Amino acid sequence: MKKTERMIALTEILLSRPNELLPLGFFADRFNSAKSTISEDLVAIRETLHMTGKGSLETVSGSAGGVKFIPSIPKEAAEQFLENLAETLSVKERILPGGFLYMADLLYDPAIVRPLGLIFAGIFRQKRPEVVATVETKGIPLALMTADSLGIPAIIVRHGNKVTEGSSVSINYISGSSKRIQTMSLARRALETGKKVLIIDDFIKAGGTAKGIINLMQEFDAEVVGLGMLMEDAVWNTSRLVNEYLALLQFMGIDSSSGKTIIKAKKL
Amino acid sequence: MKKTERMIALTEILLSRPNELLPLGFFADRFNSAKSTISEDLVAIRETLHMTGKGSLETVSGSAGGVKFIPSIPKEAAEQFLENLAETLSVKERILPGGFLYMADLLYDPAIVRPLGLIFAGIFRQKRPEVVATVETKGIPLALMTADSLGIPAIIVRHGNKVTEGSSVSINYISGSSKRIQTMSLARRALETGKKVLIIDDFIKAGGTAKGIINLMQEFDAEVVGLGMLMEDAVWNTSRLVNEYLALLQFMGIDSSSGKTIIKAKKL
Repeated sequence: MKKTERMIALTEILLSRPNELLPLGFFADRFNSAKSTISEDLVAIRETLHMTGKGSLETVSGSAGGVKFIPSIPKEAAEQFLENLAETLSVKERILPGGFLYMADLLYDPAIVRPLGLIFAGIFRQKRPEVVATVETKGIPLALMTADSLGIPAIIVRHGNKVTEGSSVSINYISGSSKRIQTMSLARRALETGKKVLIIDDFIKAGGTAKGIINLMQEFDAEVVGLGMLMEDAVWNTSRLVNEYLALLQFMGIDSSSGKTIIKAKKL
Repeated sequence: MKKTERMIALTEILLSRPNELLPLGFFADRFNSAKSTISEDLVAIRETLHMTGKGSLETVSGSAGGVKFIPSIPKEAAEQFLENLAETLSVKERILPGGFLYMADLLYDPAIVRPLGLIFAGIFRQKRPEVVATVETKGIPLALMTADSLGIPAIIVRHGNKVTEGSSVSINYISGSSKRIQTMSLARRALETGKKVLIIDDFIKAGGTAKGIINLMQEFDAEVVGLGMLMEDAVWNTSRLVNEYLALLQFMGIDSSSGKTIIKAKKL
């Protein structure tokens, strides 16, 4: 294999296996090259990634060592993406009867949730979460893409009790905005005790659901290290049940003259 | 930028924007290079990807043309992955009271569903689906990763009716194994009429749910171009409501001497 081909193949392997520690010997065997050659190649890849802002290479030395690709999104690209998303969401046609904002098409589109996952991962990576948790249904793609960018699994809290997941822990919670009592549950075997958990969801209003997940996590002795919400309802003027969260977008209300929704994107 | 750095950056851009048509002019501007230089670089990338089986570069010529990275997984790697997954699923501890098989931890792990999405995409790409559909909840990560690998959006059919998604179409269906009448619905605005739809789900037994989604798709004049299931219950010996589907794994029952589940992986 020529040097150029090796560089391309090396880049491809690192990018397609993000957050995975790959020993230098693995590459040396695959490309039939000396480890020193691979090391030089990795320097070039690290510098290029640093220049483009698309991620970094983390090196772990020693016999159990290797190299790991940590994906990221440049700050300006992330902010531009959020601005565009806010703009897309502001069109009049997205306001549903009852004043709800239609977002499901965007929440289920990989081209939208993939960058959002990278943004959440960039914000919360230093908190070293071991699991991403969400509650079904609309937050699942966001949570999954965040978990993928962080290289950790996701868990999905269910409404009610699901017989196909074995014994589970259930809690009742009061939805903060509708004041209805609801149940959420998580299978016992879904989460080992004592894990660091990052909670991701699509929308926060009064915070009842978020508070419910936090309470459920306590039943597993988990440590909640962060809460990331795609959007917060900034019109909600009563106190929230949860205050320490980060929202990428803010719903500011409806402009009475244009009829358009006003949505603000966060500066990162 | 040196040639090596340019090759790395080019590879990174193509891989991080799969299924997106990128004009040669975009690269020429970004790297301050002639289009002919970019073309030569792309030849080297195409050959390397071809050699490693990790995908292909599709070129569209003309003024609206460009290049598109189509991700794939080599056949041997895919089969090996399914074998390992079948092995992981066969352990005794995964059998739940009621005879259910616990799979949720794997279904929500990006490291598992990412390759599964690539496998489904490889199988169904030639059918040219425009949307991936699934029903909540456990099939969502699979459907999302399949959609991501195909470069198309996903839609999620909900149980019951959800007020936050606007007017919707609902159908009643009979779960084939439990014989209970259930409701599933999809928001009117979630799917334009006349689309080609690929249905993805985690498990098929009698096929009632799959049949329900197919019926719901008919209400949107959609053409169902394929059904991909992670696992079929091969013990189910009554006729199924749906027969034309592809399952990656087969649940063959429980071995009475070892107590282990017998799961067979499909040869691709």
